[in-house]
Amino acid sequence: MRRLAAALAAVCLAAPATAEPQTTPPPRTPASVLSAAAPGDWAPIDPSDLLVMELAGGGRVVIQLADAFAPAHVANIRALARTHWYDGLAIERVQDDYVVQWGDPDGEKPLPAGLTRPAPAEYTRAAAGIPLEPLPFPDTYADRVGLWRSFPVAESGAEAWLAHCYGMVGVGRDANPDTGTGAELYAVIGQPPRALDRNIAVVGRVIEGMPLLAALPRGQGDLGFYANPADRIAIRSIRLGDDLPPAERPRFEALSVGSPAFRAWIEVKANRQDTFFLRPAAALDVCNAMPPIRPIRGDASLGPPRPASAPSRSGRRAPARGR
Amino acid sequence: MRRLAAALAAVCLAAPATAEPQTTPPPRTPASVLSAAAPGDWAPIDPSDLLVMELAGGGRVVIQLADAFAPAHVANIRALARTHWYDGLAIERVQDDYVVQWGDPDGEKPLPAGLTRPAPAEYTRAAAGIPLEPLPFPDTYADRVGLWRSFPVAESGAEAWLAHCYGMVGVGRDANPDTGTGAELYAVIGQPPRALDRNIAVVGRVIEGMPLLAALPRGQGDLGFYANPADRIAIRSIRLGDDLPPAERPRFEALSVGSPAFRAWIEVKANRQDTFFLRPAAALDVCNAMPPIRPIRGDASLGPPRPASAPSRSGRRAPARGR
Repeated sequence: MRRLAAALAAVCLAAPATAEPQTTPPPRTPASVLSAAAPGDWAPIDPSDLLVMELAGGGRVVIQLADAFAPAHVANIRALARTHWYDGLAIERVQDDYVVQWGDPDGEKPLPAGLTRPAPAEYTRAAAGIPLEPLPFPDTYADRVGLWRSFPVAESGAEAWLAHCYGMVGVGRDANPDTGTGAELYAVIGQPPRALDRNIAVVGRVIEGMPLLAALPRGQGDLGFYANPADRIAIRSIRLGDDLPPAERPRFEALSVGSPAFRAWIEVKANRQDTFFLRPAAALDVCNAMPPIRPIRGDASLGPPRPASAPSRSGRRAPARGR
Repeated sequence: MRRLAAALAAVCLAAPATAEPQTTPPPRTPASVLSAAAPGDWAPIDPSDLLVMELAGGGRVVIQLADAFAPAHVANIRALARTHWYDGLAIERVQDDYVVQWGDPDGEKPLPAGLTRPAPAEYTRAAAGIPLEPLPFPDTYADRVGLWRSFPVAESGAEAWLAHCYGMVGVGRDANPDTGTGAELYAVIGQPPRALDRNIAVVGRVIEGMPLLAALPRGQGDLGFYANPADRIAIRSIRLGDDLPPAERPRFEALSVGSPAFRAWIEVKANRQDTFFLRPAAALDVCNAMPPIRPIRGDASLGPPRPASAPSRSGRRAPARGR
């Protein structure tokens, strides 16, 4: 009862019970900004830019590819997906606070012809070709940071690169820089390992399925590899979105960088005024500023939507209402 | 075979096969710095500052408490542990890229007498009382960052606070700032939610068990609460380390901030020269600079050590050898 009272008190802080004509509206939240965004603030993501991984045991991971940053690596990945080369491979490594990695665990499956090998060291791009929506806050690792399409970008001097944020996907390689083909991919599951920036080809961002990847059991072998091959998670298939039958194509939209809603979302995230926050940070790091992405409504491939909330939970003691 | 050759090549880059008298030593790595640290560079952690959570289904989580930052909250937590109040409660919330939270899921267990209620809003401390080992790199959220004992600290003006890095532990609360008692605790399992800094009492750091917490299934309810109570993870007990029988007391040591080895470790982490890294970051964020902590050898409570590596894996395509 005391807890319920506290929950109600929290609600009342935002909406006084005695409504006055001059009542100020409740402070905007990141969620309320997204709810109020105009349809035109969202842009669909071309299914041909999406990689869809289906796990043999169930579960789907969708990755948006970033051709502009690593074109030869992404072309290799597209070729590997189009030839169904990844099918039957496995998630082989889960290192806590670092990465999940998948590919050919035994390293014996011949690669198809036509890949670019060695792939060039596409670890940075010319910043001039990547017009950023800038974030006006300092970054530990770069002169400037911002967003480009769905992606977090860092820049120093004339170079731009994709930042290793949670959910970003890169191409595993050996010590030599020309050994990454696209056959081994990883996704970040911990705090951003930004020391990897500019040292490896970053090729995309997981836009669906992080809760699945990040909750996999950690590997007990060196580097988090599964010591027992039986622990590996089998991959049923990896396909480009436009290779799937129309009814199964992944349909997502991203909040457009530069749109009024995106700029409002950044402003509100950097200066939280909603009930829980006493001291707005007055800042936002690039990894917490990654543009929101959501399924396009009516997407038959997504199955029935699950309820957005369990109302009885809304007043629980929580560090915050979410990111 | 090709892969093995690549692995050997990687090794050879660091240690040429033809040994010359003038051969330069291989570049230092974070691991090699730790291996070379003097015993005096490590300091034991008092078991009375450790909170040991045993899960009913097996698994141990150890948290180092940070009394200096939130003394009333930590005193409450100590009282709750000494009275065995947490025993039989549960992990009730796992929100991806955010937090794991545990406590009293139904909010009905009476709190013991003697707690400080309401606990003061211990969200910042006087920076003058927290002598930092500074990190000379910019931070997005604070004027200065550094380390104090085992903990990541941010400072602006005259205030200091614990930064919400991976594995940091805070006290859940409702919207009102005086509603956090210590009965509900959370640990960060994603990229640092630094917007929470200065808005909540941070009380410690998980020093063992993050792979367990971070791999828990994500809750499907609002805020990541488990919608089905049967999914909650039961807590067998939470004890202060010095309340355990001597043979079970957790024995850990931390690399001393300010020691030569710690400073070398920071320098090497910020400027990776080992084989994989082509472009050292020349920077290190506070969350990736948290002082290393390890079990003290001969700790009977830890069980047999597991092998540190599976040698046949060491040359696998990997984004890097670890953090």
